[in-house]
Amino acid sequence: MRKERGLLIVLSGPSGVGKGTVRKELFSQPDTNYEYSISMTTRKPREGEVDGVDYFFKSHEDFEQLIGEGRLLEYASYVGNYYGTPLDYVNETLDAGRDVFLEIEVQGASQVRAKVPDGLFIFLAPPSLTELQQRLVGRGTETEDVIASRILAARQELEMMNLYDYVVENDEVQLACDRVNAIVTAEHCRRERVEKRYLAMLEGEY
Amino acid sequence: MRKERGLLIVLSGPSGVGKGTVRKELFSQPDTNYEYSISMTTRKPREGEVDGVDYFFKSHEDFEQLIGEGRLLEYASYVGNYYGTPLDYVNETLDAGRDVFLEIEVQGASQVRAKVPDGLFIFLAPPSLTELQQRLVGRGTETEDVIASRILAARQELEMMNLYDYVVENDEVQLACDRVNAIVTAEHCRRERVEKRYLAMLEGEY
Repeated sequence: MRKERGLLIVLSGPSGVGKGTVRKELFSQPDTNYEYSISMTTRKPREGEVDGVDYFFKSHEDFEQLIGEGRLLEYASYVGNYYGTPLDYVNETLDAGRDVFLEIEVQGASQVRAKVPDGLFIFLAPPSLTELQQRLVGRGTETEDVIASRILAARQELEMMNLYDYVVENDEVQLACDRVNAIVTAEHCRRERVEKRYLAMLEGEY
Repeated sequence: MRKERGLLIVLSGPSGVGKGTVRKELFSQPDTNYEYSISMTTRKPREGEVDGVDYFFKSHEDFEQLIGEGRLLEYASYVGNYYGTPLDYVNETLDAGRDVFLEIEVQGASQVRAKVPDGLFIFLAPPSLTELQQRLVGRGTETEDVIASRILAARQELEMMNLYDYVVENDEVQLACDRVNAIVTAEHCRRERVEKRYLAMLEGEY
């Protein structure tokens, strides 16, 4: 019987928002039911980092060869090193019917959106909206500068989140994880998706 | 500050699928964070039923007057009695920023879809897909008649679910409730919805 292809879940958001913390918390929970896609990098392993666990460590030459062969779903260079997502692992896992989870920078996420438009794109946002609201309400206790900088930050986030399907505020790590899990559960219940399962079963056999 | 309008959540599905059981279980959980919309009916209260708790009990004349005044979000007649959803309660609760939950028949749901296209429509499905799969796999142990009737049921469900955003299989009441809650949580994280919150806040003040 044909296996339903898994869901590609992309968690991204501005630097410093806590993507890594949320991802680690998600994968420390026993009932998390998706596969973490390990990134590839040319930077040297740090003390305690294990190849194939923390990263796939590659030479510059090997990394550039993979780029040339189109075998990276996304990549970027940062402080002289490459970071990227190997395409083969992602495709094999999705084909086996498992959901794959990527935690990547916004530039990478925009490359993935272009290649996998039906992925599930989640923007992790700082609790700026809540903070902004409190600051606007608490006016007079805040300087105009502080308020203005929060408004600017909110406008920038608003622009960045444009490519995404969902926005999760990272007010508290556990709450953010609960929301990510709820989004994945809901996505599996989307009518179009369930319809496909019905049709595959009915047409696969008759 | 402007209050964000609540979400209208509609749970429906074929007769006998267990809508009432799922709804009762949802509202027996202390963290369920939406309001149940009590239906209006012309049938007589049964032993122990309380007006304004189980139903709003109305006379035929009053009900027909409300129909005439367009004050029902949906209604149907069943075995000589009217059943319907009072519009005022729904609108007032949504305007107060609270989510409203309706548990109604499929005919009613289709009336609501026409009036509130941006509602959240959840189709509760019998575990027919899982059963069908098991029966197709276990072929030879099932008569052709049993298999044919499951396939027919699956085709009928497929047609009914067309108007809905999500499909929740009622394989187990608690699992079905968890999925409904996940869908509501996810819906509140949809980018379009969060974007509106950002814009309302930014534009409301500047």
